[in-house]
Amino acid sequence: MVSFESDYIAGAHPQIMKCLAETNLECLSGYGTDKYCGSAREKIRAACRCENADVEFLVGGTQANAVIIATMLRDCEGVIAAKTGHVSVHEAGAIEYTGNKVLELPERNGKIVPDVLAGYVADFYADGNHEHMVFPGMVYLSHPTEYGTLYTKQELEAIADNCHRYGMTLFLDGARLGYGLTSRESDMTLCDIARICDVFYIGGTKVGALCGEAVVFTKNNKPKHFMTSVKKRGALLAKGRLLGIQFDALFTDDLYFKISGHAIEMAERMKEIFAGKGYAFHIESPTNQQFVVLENEQMERLKRDVAFSFWENLDEKHTVVRFATSWSTTEEDLRALEAALG
Amino acid sequence: MVSFESDYIAGAHPQIMKCLAETNLECLSGYGTDKYCGSAREKIRAACRCENADVEFLVGGTQANAVIIATMLRDCEGVIAAKTGHVSVHEAGAIEYTGNKVLELPERNGKIVPDVLAGYVADFYADGNHEHMVFPGMVYLSHPTEYGTLYTKQELEAIADNCHRYGMTLFLDGARLGYGLTSRESDMTLCDIARICDVFYIGGTKVGALCGEAVVFTKNNKPKHFMTSVKKRGALLAKGRLLGIQFDALFTDDLYFKISGHAIEMAERMKEIFAGKGYAFHIESPTNQQFVVLENEQMERLKRDVAFSFWENLDEKHTVVRFATSWSTTEEDLRALEAALG
Amino acid sequence: MVSFESDYIAGAHPQIMKCLAETNLECLSGYGTDKYCGSAREKIRAACRCENADVEFLVGGTQANAVIIATMLRDCEGVIAAKTGHVSVHEAGAIEYTGNKVLELPERNGKIVPDVLAGYVADFYADGNHEHMVFPGMVYLSHPTEYGTLYTKQELEAIADNCHRYGMTLFLDGARLGYGLTSRESDMTLCDIARICDVFYIGGTKVGALCGEAVVFTKNNKPKHFMTSVKKRGALLAKGRLLGIQFDALFTDDLYFKISGHAIEMAERMKEIFAGKGYAFHIESPTNQQFVVLENEQMERLKRDVAFSFWENLDEKHTVVRFATSWSTTEEDLRALEAALG
Amino acid sequence: MVSFESDYIAGAHPQIMKCLAETNLECLSGYGTDKYCGSAREKIRAACRCENADVEFLVGGTQANAVIIATMLRDCEGVIAAKTGHVSVHEAGAIEYTGNKVLELPERNGKIVPDVLAGYVADFYADGNHEHMVFPGMVYLSHPTEYGTLYTKQELEAIADNCHRYGMTLFLDGARLGYGLTSRESDMTLCDIARICDVFYIGGTKVGALCGEAVVFTKNNKPKHFMTSVKKRGALLAKGRLLGIQFDALFTDDLYFKISGHAIEMAERMKEIFAGKGYAFHIESPTNQQFVVLENEQMERLKRDVAFSFWENLDEKHTVVRFATSWSTTEEDLRALEAALG
Repeated sequence: MVSFESDYIAGAHPQIMKCLAETNLECLSGYGTDKYCGSAREKIRAACRCENADVEFLVGGTQANAVIIATMLRDCEGVIAAKTGHVSVHEAGAIEYTGNKVLELPERNGKIVPDVLAGYVADFYADGNHEHMVFPGMVYLSHPTEYGTLYTKQELEAIADNCHRYGMTLFLDGARLGYGLTSRESDMTLCDIARICDVFYIGGTKVGALCGEAVVFTKNNKPKHFMTSVKKRGALLAKGRLLGIQFDALFTDDLYFKISGHAIEMAERMKEIFAGKGYAFHIESPTNQQFVVLENEQMERLKRDVAFSFWENLDEKHTVVRFATSWSTTEEDLRALEAALG
Repeated sequence: MVSFESDYIAGAHPQIMKCLAETNLECLSGYGTDKYCGSAREKIRAACRCENADVEFLVGGTQANAVIIATMLRDCEGVIAAKTGHVSVHEAGAIEYTGNKVLELPERNGKIVPDVLAGYVADFYADGNHEHMVFPGMVYLSHPTEYGTLYTKQELEAIADNCHRYGMTLFLDGARLGYGLTSRESDMTLCDIARICDVFYIGGTKVGALCGEAVVFTKNNKPKHFMTSVKKRGALLAKGRLLGIQFDALFTDDLYFKISGHAIEMAERMKEIFAGKGYAFHIESPTNQQFVVLENEQMERLKRDVAFSFWENLDEKHTVVRFATSWSTTEEDLRALEAALG
Repeated sequence: MVSFESDYIAGAHPQIMKCLAETNLECLSGYGTDKYCGSAREKIRAACRCENADVEFLVGGTQANAVIIATMLRDCEGVIAAKTGHVSVHEAGAIEYTGNKVLELPERNGKIVPDVLAGYVADFYADGNHEHMVFPGMVYLSHPTEYGTLYTKQELEAIADNCHRYGMTLFLDGARLGYGLTSRESDMTLCDIARICDVFYIGGTKVGALCGEAVVFTKNNKPKHFMTSVKKRGALLAKGRLLGIQFDALFTDDLYFKISGHAIEMAERMKEIFAGKGYAFHIESPTNQQFVVLENEQMERLKRDVAFSFWENLDEKHTVVRFATSWSTTEEDLRALEAALG
Repeated sequence: MVSFESDYIAGAHPQIMKCLAETNLECLSGYGTDKYCGSAREKIRAACRCENADVEFLVGGTQANAVIIATMLRDCEGVIAAKTGHVSVHEAGAIEYTGNKVLELPERNGKIVPDVLAGYVADFYADGNHEHMVFPGMVYLSHPTEYGTLYTKQELEAIADNCHRYGMTLFLDGARLGYGLTSRESDMTLCDIARICDVFYIGGTKVGALCGEAVVFTKNNKPKHFMTSVKKRGALLAKGRLLGIQFDALFTDDLYFKISGHAIEMAERMKEIFAGKGYAFHIESPTNQQFVVLENEQMERLKRDVAFSFWENLDEKHTVVRFATSWSTTEEDLRALEAALG
């Protein structure tokens, strides 16, 4: 049985495990004040070429989204997201739990369309009665999106311009950021992301770590007493080293990009296999998640040998399923998939 | 430099690191549905001799407290805690953040006094106007307490009786439970805890794990759709294996109790060292945290060689400081402490 | 200057003012425990022919929505509403503030379409991964809707069937319920509403009262300790008499229906005036709110003599505006409008 | 039967009823934008001699407390209150419901002791570990207190000094402010209150209105988009006139002070009656609430003729009960009380 179920089916990249083992006996201070957290922060700032950035580590993506949104919005504000955004659909209402509304926009291939955003905000402020409405205070987008798609630099800059014209914060959820940056279709670097966005995070959990997301505040905009706000949300890790050591490893010798690049390489090979056998793609994804249309009988047969994820019912006879690659995907896995496809 | 700063200064117990390394390449399902989580649940149920218990894993103590309290209280209810309880003082208002009041009781040595609790609840219901007040719906206690002290079985049963008489849930925060159970003064076993309490957690973070707390619902009282409630609070780990593997290791061959017992042994030796040199204890603690009174000059000198925690100012010339042992404390550490004390 | 700006531009119906004045010196107990609240409850139960109904009074509509939704949803649940629903758009995020997600459905003329609802819920439960999503726990609808439109009995029953099949609560926001029940197009009585819905409220603020909404729980489903839950949300009035006396007056001698019927009569006459002069309606509304398309120049001229509400920009040259009638609308007002329209 | 049960047993002062009746047919804009709200704001600013004050109207005391505290605290902060403060005990956890902790201080006669406050804050900042604790961001006090007692100007200034030294907001709950200002023991005017406090409210509900509290922000510190924040909390009244007209009446010809002064006069006479007959007071209250110790048998007898409130059990044979005066208390009421006391 070979698995493409998700990009978090295996443990951590061996280099991360090695660092955790080597530092295991060191006595370190808690709550993210240790030297590895410090070193990881420094390396991330350097990788972003943003020397004033504030970098903080959180355990997971939903937690990062909830903490960032809740601490950066003003009382009268909500966060704009695509209707298919992770915060809109798959976080069990975590953003609303913090008291904040997600203002859902129609999407195209999982992406917010700059013009749709511009129209929404313009309409909002055109209507004199907006004191009874939630003010748009932030734009949330995921890059890659939940459909594996990417924003172009031009799109991201157009969205940022709109945000800044209206005093909104641009927040990029980078749970799978590595796969976006190393995609063959990417026209952005990590520095571009850091320059354009007001806050974003570099996903660890889905890019080789056991857990962890590195939040980057790029504009001297880290909320005051952020550690207390994190604690208040039950999100402060006592052994903060667990996050610091992992990100220190990920940002040493480009490991983060190597992991991501490997997964992209595997995904491209996987695409060729599917295409070669005449399978249709539900969406054109340039990253590590591929959405393939299967006939239902085909799907049932394939399940015996290959693990993958249900995505959605397409029609009575077809289903969309997801195949994901990661640091742990091997050529042998691809050969097994190819064989199983018959 | 030797450190007794806390029980979370080192990484994980080597046996845990070994299990994480050995299972690292296995493909496992996410969100706590993997086989190691399953195995850990089974072993914990067996250790508690509570075969119907529901066991769920959360990342940290404040998170566990916030999730448990918020999902188990009814709308009109709050949680009773000692004025010195962790939820009362040192969680940055995490319980209130979820919308629930902490009803603080005066304490004795960090413990809720059963008679004080009984009086509080009786008074509450004696007053006909309680519809404008927060109903006491749960009792939170930590065992060991924040002062390292322990409830006796008789005390815990008296508190439980009071809870059940008034329909309240008894919740025990066991962030350091192992040290309580292996203390020389303990008259309770894990089975007693599971029998008496309605819900409790077995702390991992402070007892040898990298992170993780195992929440045990003992009375078929796990909130419905608990996974969704956990996700809603940003507390669901994608790689749930990280918690399952660690607790599976901790509950194999009594590792949890061995770790705890070692720390207690080291703490007892440390007490002898302090006592032998004439130091006063601020409180009589039978567990792994020791609270020692130092003259301020003495304290400054000692800081050069030994790391410990500030606890509180006693008077102008004296300070209470905390020395904690853990799985990583060695005899060599104790000798270094002894030497440094002069 | 004549005003059709809203249905809350005037004070209370004179009969209500009379009752407030007559009872003003009576000593009454607070918090909704007085005899007028009791009498109003009894009369509302009788009017609904639902003798077991629990009736509670709240001050305003957003408050009623927020309290009802927050106290009736389970932790994993959210509330379904039309994308144009009051809770979705015009309550400044009050539902999300209580921690609950509004699940927005596409609408037709402001109404939830029964088949769209059925499809949404069926899809939700078809998807095996719904533990990461907000469960649909309640359907919120307004009747009349924000566009003045009405559900038919058949539609409401279809929605109720769907709710009950999946264990969802059906909640009807009746801020303008009287106008719905007395509309010429209504095929439902108050008894039908009470029989079909699980909870609803009878709006006072917009139907002749100074303030106040009467919440009716029809299925022995009033949340336990509801008074405490109301207090906890800052929504409990000390002089509860203010609400009780008003609703007692409204449900004496059918005043509620007389007020509503008068406004409908005035609205129908107003429609004739607009139609007679060739104005277009943006939507076909059978209740007291009429949405008329005006050329922008026309609109500016009309503003000098008549007050009305901006609704939305239709195109560059046309605007949709709202004219509302109420208990205080007179034939003289209509003549003034007619004259102003030229 | 004569009633001293509370200061909200009767309707509104006749002058308020008269104003409501006289303005009833006027067409006014909603949500607090009408001319009576404007006029009331202006009169309150003048009465406070604080021409830049922002004045906003809310419906009730708990609502005012919850809205003010939630909109003025920063994320890491909580509000300090006396252990007997209204927000601490009798608001069903309304402050915690908004996510904010009430930091309870020991009290003396219902009052925060300036030195105790100073010590608390100094201790907080002395402890280097306060990042895990809720920061004291505001001091809440009620004047008169829940025990009818008053702060002296010196005490209030000492508290204010402490607040401002540490960047905390001083918030005074004036639900019964009129009775405080007209007490024979008061050494403060409304101008003093406005000068010393950062925000406070002038209670209407308990001082002659049907409902309503006038919140006064004295230091250009009204939260931005406050109307939206009020709406978000379900606290915005559609017919805002109801509050504006009442406060306009209360601040015309000193009505607010006349009402208060009358109640104080009645309370002083009542005190003489009790004292003359040898009854003991539980506390020395200089305002409109009197706390009298009754033997339980005496209490049962008195209940037949006089309504009063249970306060607390003193011992097995004695109970503390409360007698309150208000605008509606008459000399005849006092004679009836005297007669009933025998």
